[in-house]
Amino acid sequence: MMAPSKLPRQLADTWQSRLGLAPAGEPAPPWATSRWFNHEGAPLQPAALRGRVVVLHAFQMLCPACVHHGLPQAQRIQAAFAADDVAVVGLHTVFEHHAAMMPVSLEAFLHENRIRLAVGVDAVAADATDPIPVTMRRYGFQGTPSLVLIDRKGRVRRHAFGAEEDLTVGAAIAVLLAEVG
Amino acid sequence: MMAPSKLPRQLADTWQSRLGLAPAGEPAPPWATSRWFNHEGAPLQPAALRGRVVVLHAFQMLCPACVHHGLPQAQRIQAAFAADDVAVVGLHTVFEHHAAMMPVSLEAFLHENRIRLAVGVDAVAADATDPIPVTMRRYGFQGTPSLVLIDRKGRVRRHAFGAEEDLTVGAAIAVLLAEVG
Amino acid sequence: MMAPSKLPRQLADTWQSRLGLAPAGEPAPPWATSRWFNHEGAPLQPAALRGRVVVLHAFQMLCPACVHHGLPQAQRIQAAFAADDVAVVGLHTVFEHHAAMMPVSLEAFLHENRIRLAVGVDAVAADATDPIPVTMRRYGFQGTPSLVLIDRKGRVRRHAFGAEEDLTVGAAIAVLLAEVG
Amino acid sequence: MMAPSKLPRQLADTWQSRLGLAPAGEPAPPWATSRWFNHEGAPLQPAALRGRVVVLHAFQMLCPACVHHGLPQAQRIQAAFAADDVAVVGLHTVFEHHAAMMPVSLEAFLHENRIRLAVGVDAVAADATDPIPVTMRRYGFQGTPSLVLIDRKGRVRRHAFGAEEDLTVGAAIAVLLAEVG
Repeated sequence: MMAPSKLPRQLADTWQSRLGLAPAGEPAPPWATSRWFNHEGAPLQPAALRGRVVVLHAFQMLCPACVHHGLPQAQRIQAAFAADDVAVVGLHTVFEHHAAMMPVSLEAFLHENRIRLAVGVDAVAADATDPIPVTMRRYGFQGTPSLVLIDRKGRVRRHAFGAEEDLTVGAAIAVLLAEVG
Repeated sequence: MMAPSKLPRQLADTWQSRLGLAPAGEPAPPWATSRWFNHEGAPLQPAALRGRVVVLHAFQMLCPACVHHGLPQAQRIQAAFAADDVAVVGLHTVFEHHAAMMPVSLEAFLHENRIRLAVGVDAVAADATDPIPVTMRRYGFQGTPSLVLIDRKGRVRRHAFGAEEDLTVGAAIAVLLAEVG
Repeated sequence: MMAPSKLPRQLADTWQSRLGLAPAGEPAPPWATSRWFNHEGAPLQPAALRGRVVVLHAFQMLCPACVHHGLPQAQRIQAAFAADDVAVVGLHTVFEHHAAMMPVSLEAFLHENRIRLAVGVDAVAADATDPIPVTMRRYGFQGTPSLVLIDRKGRVRRHAFGAEEDLTVGAAIAVLLAEVG
Repeated sequence: MMAPSKLPRQLADTWQSRLGLAPAGEPAPPWATSRWFNHEGAPLQPAALRGRVVVLHAFQMLCPACVHHGLPQAQRIQAAFAADDVAVVGLHTVFEHHAAMMPVSLEAFLHENRIRLAVGVDAVAADATDPIPVTMRRYGFQGTPSLVLIDRKGRVRRHAFGAEEDLTVGAAIAVLLAEVG
C-alpha cells in the first residue's frame, strides 16, 4: 500500500500539490466503453456528469488489490455521499489475462459481490496487438486499481495508482465538492 | 458501529445538517485539564489553536471502541494532515472505573501503544460525587469515543459519539479546511 | 459464518459427533476432474493419497466466502502442516455462472492470487442439463465453500459447508494425524 | 508475528520437536497468585486440573499484542472446546509498568472487554527489587503474550512466546486431547 501523502500546509498549495494539476486542468477525456453493467441508457461520459464530482475507479476483476481494497472503497464512497453530489463509476480496464475477464465473467463477479456501481467495460484497442484498452491509454493509467477524481467542471484533478486511505480520498472529494461555483 | 450519515444533496445544506450547528456556532468551551502527555508548556486550549482545524478525540483507555477504532483513527488523522493545518488532540475523559484509569495507567497505555498524540487528562469535577469530568460535562459528551471538530475560528462544528467512517471524517475536516479566512 | 461446534466432552464421542460419521466410515469417492492446475502427472485421487490426511477444499472462484475465507484458510493449512502429513487439494466445483468461471479464468485467478494449491476442475455432468458437476454430486456438497477431511485410510471423516474456524479445523486435522497406523 | 512452525513429517517426531520437550516432561510448576478474577474458591492450580488439557495464557493488560491477538485467541479456544476437556486460564504477569496495571485496573479491563476467562494475578516477587513476578520466573517466560500447554497428566508440553496461529494451536491442543489415559 502506498503511503498517504500529507495535505500540505498552505491550503491553496495543498490542492495543487495534492492533485498534481493546475486548478484549470484539462477536461477529462471521454470514456470509450463497449458495454455497461448496473446502468441503462446512453453510455456514461464525464461531460454528461458535469456539476457533480466524479470518482472513476479503474479495476480488473482478478486484481487482488482491486477486490480487497479498491472496490470496497468505491462502494463506501458511493454509500457516504449523495448521488447528486458524487457520481461513482467503475471502469473495467483489462490489460492482461483478457480471455479470463470477459464481460460474462465480470457480470457474475459483480452479481456475486453485490456491487451496484455503474461499471463500464473499457473498449478493446483498435490495434488488435495492443493489450491496453482505449480509455486506459487515454488516461495513462499505470495499472489497477487507479482512482481518478473529476471536478464539477469536468476536469481531471487527481489521479492515483494503488491503494489510498479513506481519509485522504474523502478529504479530496470534499475539496472538490466545496468548489461550488 | 453507527451508520454513516450521507452528505445531503445541497452542499450548503450538507454542512449545516451534517454538523447539526449553524455556521456561526458557539465558540468551543475551554478544556479543563489536570495534566498533559506528549505535550509540554501551557495546557492546550481551543482558543490558542485558532487558524487551524482542531480534531478533539475524547476517549477512555479501557473503552474497547476507543482502543480498537477511535484512537487508531485519530492517529491516522494526525498522519494524513499537516500539523499546521489540523491539530489532533486527545482528551482522557474518565467517567467510570476512575481508580482503574489513573494518569499512571494512561501514561503506560500511551507508551505501549506508541500513541504520540497530545493527550490531556480531563479535570475531576469540583463536586466529588460527580463522576463526570469537567470538560466532558461542558461539551455534553454522551460517552466515549466522541469526536469534536472545531473550525479555524474556534467554533464547534461537529460532534459525534461512537464510531465514524474515515471517509466522512476526512470529508468533514476538508470542508473546514476549505473555510480559509 | 457458522458458529463453531464445541468438541464434546468425551473424546471418543467427540470424534464421532463432530465428524457425523462412524469411525469406519465410507471410502472417499473418487474425484472426477477435467483438468489440474499446480499439479502435473496423473490426476490426483484420494486413493493415491492414502497414508496422509487429505483436506479437500471445494470452491468457486467467484464465490466471495471462498475468496475471502475458504481459500486463505486452505493456504494456511498447507503452510502449517508438512506436505507428507497433510495433502491440501482444491476442487473447482462450478455449479452456477458456468461461462463466467471457465478454466481460462480460473488459471488467471490462481496466478493473480498466488495460490499454489493443486486445484482440480470438477468434471461437467454427463447430462448437459445438470448444472452440478460430477464430484460435487458424488460428495453431496450443499454449496461452496465446502471442506472435506479424509483420514489416512482414505475415508471421509468430516464434511463442512460454509466458513469454519481455524482452531477447530486445525484440531480436527490433528485428530486424524494422530490416528497412526 | 512469529512464523508458524510446520508440523514435521514424522508424527512421533512432530510432537517432540514441536513441543521441545520429551514426552515424559516435567510437571507444570504451581501457580503463585495473589488474586483471581472470574473464579471463586481455592486458587486454581495445574495439579488440580489433571485430566484436562490446560491452556495457560500469560498476558499484561497494556501489552498490545496481548490485547489484539493473545486474549482474543484465548477466548476463541475457550469457546471452541468443552470446559471438561480444555481449561483455559489467564495469568496476569506484570513485569513492567507495575503501578499502571494494578488489580483494580485489570478488573475494569476484564469487565469492559467482556473477558470471562479465569484470570490469576501473578504474585509479586518476595524480593521487592525484582520486577518479575513469581510464576513468570518459575516458568521462564520471555515476555507477553506467552502460551503454555499442559497435558492431561499435568506436564508442560508446549511453551510459546509471541503470536501463534490458531491452526497450529488448535492442532497442538487436539494432540494432547488425544492422549487419553
